[in-house]
Amino acid sequence: MRAEIVSIGTELLLGQIIDTNAAYIAGELPLLGIDLYYVSQVGDNLGRMTEVLGRAWSRSDIVITTGGLGPTQDDVTREGIAAMLGEKIYADATLEKEIREFFAQRAWKMPESNVKQATLIPSARPIVNPRGTAPGWWVEKDGKLLIAMPGPPIEMQRMWEKEASPRLRQMMKGEVILSRTIKTLGLSEAAVDELLVPFLKDTNPSIGVYAKSDGIQLRLTSKAARREEAAARIAAREDEIRALLGSCIWGLDDETLEGVVGWLLAARKWRLAIMESCTGGLLSSMVTDSPGSSAYFKGGVVAYANEVKVAWGVPSGLIERHGVVSTEVAAAMAAAIRERMKAEVGVSTTGVAGPDELEGKPVGLVYIGLDDGRTQRVVEANVPRRRVDIKKRASVHALFELRRLLLDGG
Amino acid sequence: MRAEIVSIGTELLLGQIIDTNAAYIAGELPLLGIDLYYVSQVGDNLGRMTEVLGRAWSRSDIVITTGGLGPTQDDVTREGIAAMLGEKIYADATLEKEIREFFAQRAWKMPESNVKQATLIPSARPIVNPRGTAPGWWVEKDGKLLIAMPGPPIEMQRMWEKEASPRLRQMMKGEVILSRTIKTLGLSEAAVDELLVPFLKDTNPSIGVYAKSDGIQLRLTSKAARREEAAARIAAREDEIRALLGSCIWGLDDETLEGVVGWLLAARKWRLAIMESCTGGLLSSMVTDSPGSSAYFKGGVVAYANEVKVAWGVPSGLIERHGVVSTEVAAAMAAAIRERMKAEVGVSTTGVAGPDELEGKPVGLVYIGLDDGRTQRVVEANVPRRRVDIKKRASVHALFELRRLLLDGG
Repeated sequence: MRAEIVSIGTELLLGQIIDTNAAYIAGELPLLGIDLYYVSQVGDNLGRMTEVLGRAWSRSDIVITTGGLGPTQDDVTREGIAAMLGEKIYADATLEKEIREFFAQRAWKMPESNVKQATLIPSARPIVNPRGTAPGWWVEKDGKLLIAMPGPPIEMQRMWEKEASPRLRQMMKGEVILSRTIKTLGLSEAAVDELLVPFLKDTNPSIGVYAKSDGIQLRLTSKAARREEAAARIAAREDEIRALLGSCIWGLDDETLEGVVGWLLAARKWRLAIMESCTGGLLSSMVTDSPGSSAYFKGGVVAYANEVKVAWGVPSGLIERHGVVSTEVAAAMAAAIRERMKAEVGVSTTGVAGPDELEGKPVGLVYIGLDDGRTQRVVEANVPRRRVDIKKRASVHALFELRRLLLDGG
Repeated sequence: MRAEIVSIGTELLLGQIIDTNAAYIAGELPLLGIDLYYVSQVGDNLGRMTEVLGRAWSRSDIVITTGGLGPTQDDVTREGIAAMLGEKIYADATLEKEIREFFAQRAWKMPESNVKQATLIPSARPIVNPRGTAPGWWVEKDGKLLIAMPGPPIEMQRMWEKEASPRLRQMMKGEVILSRTIKTLGLSEAAVDELLVPFLKDTNPSIGVYAKSDGIQLRLTSKAARREEAAARIAAREDEIRALLGSCIWGLDDETLEGVVGWLLAARKWRLAIMESCTGGLLSSMVTDSPGSSAYFKGGVVAYANEVKVAWGVPSGLIERHGVVSTEVAAAMAAAIRERMKAEVGVSTTGVAGPDELEGKPVGLVYIGLDDGRTQRVVEANVPRRRVDIKKRASVHALFELRRLLLDGG
């Protein structure tokens, strides 16, 4: 089955927004066993849109559109689909009633222009929109399928997860497709590619390699007639990969580093305190991205000025002797914050965020301090040189090392 | 002049990366007075790529490609362009010498596969790559133009800024195009649209409205035979917009909120200290995104647990009486951090980050405290309800209010 994506909206062609919808759907299609060969963006222009949709309809089995389903004059996706298929748009009484009720429930006045969102063509069935007013269209004709979804990413993703993807899954000839994502940190993409060479020619399971800010992710996808077979294929390949990648693996599927660390802390009933310098608040911010972090995160100090480090318990003599970017200071910061905030584990970061060198040390050099009372450890990391990247990557490394400490000790 | 963008790379069709290159170029083209009507993505498949390039070449004046210029077998953009134009690829001796020297200077061994990056076709001239080995192609034929650039965004953007965009500017019939971006916060996109209605029909200057995480941005673009005329048109419209949007405007062009605040603090020789709760470290992290922030940022405390707030000087009775999400506690946090860190100005955030209500207060309610010794102020903000958004938008609001305080007082 070949799919094609058409992202609709003049704001895309003005660079006002980035087409994340296409990337999202492109990442989802392999999980359904559907191939994607073309992606296009087109503006809110009926003529050009009809032409692009027509080409997509002729060369692909499934056409997926996002955008242009709103109530304004610029929203012409329905008109484009109708023109392309040579069908007439009509107002559907049931849909119109539902849209009026949506507004009435909120005591909002419904602009009459919203009525155009209650239209269909003979070949289209509406797709419920769990998060907005515009239903999507599910259009089957001549053995082909067109799925029209809203543009706003949250609405589109919910409609995809709840309605479109399950329907597509049912259509796919009873095959089962399972996938598992393995999340790693510590090896470059090239190094991972090389380790995976024995497996890359295998199409079942297939392996997709994705470079993300929290490391290299491997997605194993298996297709089979029965669920047990697909699961077995994935489990076997996962075991082989674990044997090769071992301690570089920190999580699976939807897990985040901060979530994994949070779970480990909560399981021990430990609280975390952070003293960070070069990461400037980002490490604490990542920890607090996890809902429920108040159960295990006491707080942090962004000890940007050296006097703040000293006020919080780092001996000033240590800074004078070794420099603020040093293993000694990283260790002292972790110990001090752990004690002062009365936490079970303290983590620190000190490094050179750039753009200039500091104390003769290169941009990207970062020391991560960890202290859980029994184990004191400092890890040196060297991260890519752009300022914003340094903060992010240093924070990611710090969480990875905290996970390692929590697994090793305590 | 009509342009079309073709983003090349199978990783795009697998959802492994998002096509930021197309959005970047799409945002740049209006500054050159070039219209964009089509964007496509295609994989590293010679047949499909040649077809897509051929359609683009026939319907547009300028075709811009990114990706597929690397040294591997999957990099077939040059082959695709050659096939599309019916020209023969040959190895250019000068380019080959330059690539070999690039490797020699770094004492790296050059893989022979890199030689394919030294190829051209008769209609192509090389475009210098300031950041990598692969030169781009500038192809002029039959009154049309094709610009082929590398895929990695940093390399592409540098090549665009340094080489491609200046060359395009020269080609555009001696017209001058100027643009000015006005950055605002505090009005919704709909409210801004409404205020701009008198101006939106004007095409010179034109106004593009962009919703960003730091507010609504307006980009004025003017085209004229002489620079003075374009500048005058922009200045006049900018004055009219300032009269309408007034204090909502916080910055221009490439300025960031944290940069603007940093400049104001440095101008006064004031230092900033932050005690943040619901923003969890993100407010400090935004401040430290600005290079040179160590000159005016002393540090912050992420006082996530209430005992940390109390340990840092917030009276526990205040929390008991009014709740931690209250104007009283916000004010106390700002005053306390300013004093304890011996800073000139203290800023605090306390609010309900979700997913649950807190103390019966709704998700998204945030109080921002500000204290510069003479003025103590608390601002209430209500921000959209998703956790990660709440932290970001609350931090943005806090910086906006700090800017206001610095302009009003001191």
